[in-house]
Amino acid sequence: MKKRNVYLKGVPLQEARDKFFEGLAVFREELRMEGEPIPVDVGALSRITAEPVFAKLSQPAYHSCAMDGIATRSHLTFGASETNPRRLRLGEEAVYVDTGDPLPRGFDSVIMVEDLIETTPLEVAIISPARPWQHVRTVGEDIVATELVLPENHKIRAFDLGALLAAGVTQVMVRRKPKVAIIPTGDELILPGTTPEVGDITEFNSRLIGGLVQEWGGEPIFWDIVPDEPQALTEAVVKASLSADIIVVNAGSSAGSEDYTSDIVKSLGELFVHGVAIKPGKPTILGIVDNKPFFGIPGYPVSAALSCELFLLPLLAKMLGQKVKERTTINATLARRIVSVPGMDEFIRVKVGKVGGRYVASPLARGAGAIMSLVRADGYIEIPGSSQGIQESSEVAVHLLRDAEEIDNAVVAIGSHDLALDLLGSLLSGKYPGMSLSSTHVGSMGGIMAMRRGEAHIAGVHLLDEETGEYNVPYVKRYSILKTMPLSILYTENKV
Amino acid sequence: MKKRNVYLKGVPLQEARDKFFEGLAVFREELRMEGEPIPVDVGALSRITAEPVFAKLSQPAYHSCAMDGIATRSHLTFGASETNPRRLRLGEEAVYVDTGDPLPRGFDSVIMVEDLIETTPLEVAIISPARPWQHVRTVGEDIVATELVLPENHKIRAFDLGALLAAGVTQVMVRRKPKVAIIPTGDELILPGTTPEVGDITEFNSRLIGGLVQEWGGEPIFWDIVPDEPQALTEAVVKASLSADIIVVNAGSSAGSEDYTSDIVKSLGELFVHGVAIKPGKPTILGIVDNKPFFGIPGYPVSAALSCELFLLPLLAKMLGQKVKERTTINATLARRIVSVPGMDEFIRVKVGKVGGRYVASPLARGAGAIMSLVRADGYIEIPGSSQGIQESSEVAVHLLRDAEEIDNAVVAIGSHDLALDLLGSLLSGKYPGMSLSSTHVGSMGGIMAMRRGEAHIAGVHLLDEETGEYNVPYVKRYSILKTMPLSILYTENKV
Repeated sequence: MKKRNVYLKGVPLQEARDKFFEGLAVFREELRMEGEPIPVDVGALSRITAEPVFAKLSQPAYHSCAMDGIATRSHLTFGASETNPRRLRLGEEAVYVDTGDPLPRGFDSVIMVEDLIETTPLEVAIISPARPWQHVRTVGEDIVATELVLPENHKIRAFDLGALLAAGVTQVMVRRKPKVAIIPTGDELILPGTTPEVGDITEFNSRLIGGLVQEWGGEPIFWDIVPDEPQALTEAVVKASLSADIIVVNAGSSAGSEDYTSDIVKSLGELFVHGVAIKPGKPTILGIVDNKPFFGIPGYPVSAALSCELFLLPLLAKMLGQKVKERTTINATLARRIVSVPGMDEFIRVKVGKVGGRYVASPLARGAGAIMSLVRADGYIEIPGSSQGIQESSEVAVHLLRDAEEIDNAVVAIGSHDLALDLLGSLLSGKYPGMSLSSTHVGSMGGIMAMRRGEAHIAGVHLLDEETGEYNVPYVKRYSILKTMPLSILYTENKV
Repeated sequence: MKKRNVYLKGVPLQEARDKFFEGLAVFREELRMEGEPIPVDVGALSRITAEPVFAKLSQPAYHSCAMDGIATRSHLTFGASETNPRRLRLGEEAVYVDTGDPLPRGFDSVIMVEDLIETTPLEVAIISPARPWQHVRTVGEDIVATELVLPENHKIRAFDLGALLAAGVTQVMVRRKPKVAIIPTGDELILPGTTPEVGDITEFNSRLIGGLVQEWGGEPIFWDIVPDEPQALTEAVVKASLSADIIVVNAGSSAGSEDYTSDIVKSLGELFVHGVAIKPGKPTILGIVDNKPFFGIPGYPVSAALSCELFLLPLLAKMLGQKVKERTTINATLARRIVSVPGMDEFIRVKVGKVGGRYVASPLARGAGAIMSLVRADGYIEIPGSSQGIQESSEVAVHLLRDAEEIDNAVVAIGSHDLALDLLGSLLSGKYPGMSLSSTHVGSMGGIMAMRRGEAHIAGVHLLDEETGEYNVPYVKRYSILKTMPLSILYTENKV
């Protein structure tokens, strides 16, 4: 029989983080990625400057005209007025110019074409004087050569591309993207696109993790599936440590028979943490191999995503000189009681709906294997290890996984599920971009109750009343739902 | 002499928008981009689904074990307790399983390895009964084949990649990115990297516009600089209309000598709008050429950026089935009076600082030629055409161009400028990611006044007191600044 471990007791979240980052600091003085030169072009968007960028040229590079009209010498115009127009001889006293033209030598101001009267081929007349340097862009007005254009650790935007090129900078040093080797392991794994036999599991976590890595500014490097053999996994990790900046092994971090990962980290480098007191995500492994940060990421997709968010995201941010962007948080009323395991920080995915002007959060299925719960989630709430749960109708802080605007524009359906509801939702977002259907499946009575509590805009219901033999209507009457909101009608607070 | 136009009177913003989109609708029944198939991989991130996506496979595809332990038949475990442990024979009554293993045929529940006592090679004992389907992931628990995974017009995230692959979907139909041909025109334009002679202007707008297009989900196609000749520009526009989905001509839209653009649109297609009552951005041209939306974008970078945001962004969003994301808006106190031109909607770039717990907005230089004003801006305020301006200390709504978090973490310097301040700012963001120096240059006395009004954390000052021959200190005393805040000390409200 293969060796079995009972789970290590998890390390509290903050302690795990500290151990990891302090451990890394001992091995690696500087976590920051070095700079690499790239052309100033759209490929540089969202890259991070590795050093301050200074202007090479002034902009404008010469005094230039800011308007279409005439260039003139301002002292010639003093005293011009409606009653006393001033005539300027073209050539000597005035020269036609267009916006962007260099200001002709000896001239110091521009008068707009709209302000010229009585133009002849030989002269123009004006009825108000020109201030010195009026409608002139002087040298360096926008950018002075040597001045700072972008500071270090700045994420490059479209505006910045324009400014860099205007400042004569055609190449910029940006932090190299951390290469993250993602190694899926498990004999049961098969490639996506293959029909799974009993016992097969489609390997999709690598793209989930790789997608997060890419969203966070790293470069995912996908490895082939490695079989459950310590030798094969050791070889993969050693090879990855030679080419990547971060090593991620996915699965093999539970205490199951496939658990070779932590032994490999111990033998190749140093193990800082095995098991974190979080749910989901407990079987996370944190360590270092050949001076490279090492992650053992749990096999369940929800655990994997959370483990990445809690440990990999802060590391990537540190390496890129960025601050982790806090998720937007809103307050919502909890629709159903949540019981939580004491001693573990628990992260509960929720749907959030805005109904009758208030936000209502409904907990989603908590199985860590349900990838669709991540797709459906609007946010999550965090229940600290010291808590045993949260009462129904409590106010909770929801960390959003979507824009608040999207949530505000969602029609909330709670009740019995039907594929037609899915189609209706897709039609809605298809026809009205930004709108969506947020659908939670809790059965017909759950829908009735949600309507009654004012937590849903619509409810799918199919309930037979045994006394009358009639469907639905008796229930609607019995629970006084018509008093709260029209049923069976697509109702939204937003203009459709 | 070349032909000269006085500017057309601008069309009000909303009217310009309506004319443009109604005009397009007449020519093009469906603005939405068609779908194209792409592999479900990290390359699909941020792409938009062109149709609803349904699951091809159920997940799990078979009943599977959700824990490491034993699979058993629940009815055999009824009555097990601490005083009356139940023994299960391995093989017939219990089988060791790992997380993810298929549930062996004929078994209906899993007992965790932690709950097993007295294990021998032949049997295990348990002290509590197993519920049917306990710790079992049933077929389709996560995803049922045929169910909706993603609706139409959904922007694909990392989570979604995982869900699609789990659902057996390896290829997804996404909206083709609109190809935006960007045609710079002007005899004065030179390529970036060339040192400008007097009269030359570095062509950087194409990358500014192209960067915005890419940020908004389009694909910029860069054209070579076209000389100021109607024939050359006509050829470029015709050629672009054959390959691109949107045509953008940059510059040539002012009423200067180079103004051929609107004539070309008239001759090749239809001109909807020439000149919009906005500042900056007035010389915007909107039309259609060969069934393709056409934009004449002003030559000044700030005008170009605003014109893109007001017209090109909504068009791209419509073509991609997206809603334009509203910019975050905060309320701030206006530091200085703004005078505005009546009859035009004016967009004023501002720096925003958080000092003493309140947001203060300082207007930036308004020249439309200053690309650095876009780089430095934290947001903009909109002054409607009906207004002549805004009084100092008024509360204004600022539409943010940065995250509010960045603004909260900025040290506000107002006063005399010095390159050392730039370096200090870069050191700050270099050492403390997320922190920055927000620097406004208004001279020493401006800095003293800003400190006095509580609008700055630090002020650069070099002022000679002629009476005493002493620098700075007499001014600090005279204006009682020490009572408000320590000067010359890098002060921040945030933990560094």
